[in-house]
Amino acid sequence: MSLAMDYVHGYSAREGIRLRDQANALAELLHSGTRYGAGVRVLEAGCGTGAQTVLLADRSPEALFTSIDVSERSLAEAGRRVELAGYENVRFLQADIHRLPFEPSSFDHVFVCFVLEHLGDPAAALRALMTVVKPGGSLTVIEGDHGSAYFHPASERASRVIQCLIDLQQLAGGDSLIGRRLYPLLVHAGYRDVQVTPRVAYADGSRPDLADAITLKTFTAMVEGVADQAVGQGLIDAASWSAGIRDLKRAADDDGTFCYTFFKAVAVR
Amino acid sequence: MSLAMDYVHGYSAREGIRLRDQANALAELLHSGTRYGAGVRVLEAGCGTGAQTVLLADRSPEALFTSIDVSERSLAEAGRRVELAGYENVRFLQADIHRLPFEPSSFDHVFVCFVLEHLGDPAAALRALMTVVKPGGSLTVIEGDHGSAYFHPASERASRVIQCLIDLQQLAGGDSLIGRRLYPLLVHAGYRDVQVTPRVAYADGSRPDLADAITLKTFTAMVEGVADQAVGQGLIDAASWSAGIRDLKRAADDDGTFCYTFFKAVAVR
Repeated sequence: MSLAMDYVHGYSAREGIRLRDQANALAELLHSGTRYGAGVRVLEAGCGTGAQTVLLADRSPEALFTSIDVSERSLAEAGRRVELAGYENVRFLQADIHRLPFEPSSFDHVFVCFVLEHLGDPAAALRALMTVVKPGGSLTVIEGDHGSAYFHPASERASRVIQCLIDLQQLAGGDSLIGRRLYPLLVHAGYRDVQVTPRVAYADGSRPDLADAITLKTFTAMVEGVADQAVGQGLIDAASWSAGIRDLKRAADDDGTFCYTFFKAVAVR
Repeated sequence: MSLAMDYVHGYSAREGIRLRDQANALAELLHSGTRYGAGVRVLEAGCGTGAQTVLLADRSPEALFTSIDVSERSLAEAGRRVELAGYENVRFLQADIHRLPFEPSSFDHVFVCFVLEHLGDPAAALRALMTVVKPGGSLTVIEGDHGSAYFHPASERASRVIQCLIDLQQLAGGDSLIGRRLYPLLVHAGYRDVQVTPRVAYADGSRPDLADAITLKTFTAMVEGVADQAVGQGLIDAASWSAGIRDLKRAADDDGTFCYTFFKAVAVR
């Protein structure tokens, strides 16, 4: 799940404040409780285009981050994003989470966000990460759960388009319902003191900016991203897809509501 | 939804502590943020058998509660429960929420918990309550949302038995998905400054007592309560029902998880 937003609304000062408030609300939801001290070595595994990297660097300005990703292209974008934001405490490295190029106990802590959902064997990834974090160090995992999305007005058609996304992720070897199973996953991978907290992103008419950010720009935009695959692979017909997306957007109206739950796990090696 | 629990585990001191911790966890989840001061007049509309009444009286010992219910039988049980717990700041009265026997502005605040989900016209009830609370007084509403229940291992069969409960409540004129629409409901009824917070009851293997309390004794027990109706009315066959309940209980195992979201709304007349 990406929290990235495009800037269709322009760059006026007022708009800048609105966007910052939105981003802050979601960032606080996910990152509250995560702070790393001075000189602490943190591995961010699967940084993608750096959406979480800038938040990590901002909240723990004296920690030393190593952010890896399998994609050179994503890493390049993450590097630009971090440079633009002016952070100097992140080094980037192309690496596969299953073949980590680090000595045992190279890191004090590991941070993984929106990565395990895409992996065919998330337990293997968690065991690999365990080898590079020192004993007593921590692992932090944040994942979504697309089955946690519900909204008002409730709509069968909207639920169907969400199910297409879940099915496609499963066909690709991933699991977009992974949030709810973080606890057993981490326990089985051998981590200790696993603590999972659900974190609900909720939007209603009292905060149109949040409805816009969460319901439309984050969730609906993500679902819309698989339109061609869903229709192309025959999971749904084009008319049903459009109707479902329309119903999903309806939840961002003044009298609509939307709920989505992220799961954050913290565990000890 | 009832948070009542039966006492199949007996009454040993250790068991007593466990049960108190469970009840506290759920009570805190629902009641945090709700406190009424000395001499403040509060109407609890639809007190049922008093499960929330004792929590209200305990947390606001100097407030003056008037707890009403349409059922004389429930009121009698609520009265016994409050008396047994030793609270003296509650008076009980048989009354219909749609025909309240109170003068305008008789109360400083109104509290409604697990009531609107059962009503055919919750908006009318909210408007009726508005007449008896003074201008500037508050309304607090807590409701569940059965569509917010999900679990690991995910199970189609378990989802089907939950859907039976949702369907039966709808056939009876209620709405067990009401949590997600509290915001528009209160706004349309004319309340001001409506603020809704989702409150997630989450259980995993780190807290077997919570899995027992939430997954089994609260949620699954509630679903099981409509077994005869669901099968009798032909919504599901007996074998599928049993399989669904088995899968739901499976979520309370050490490697299972369960999530349910309550919605709490606070608004001003």
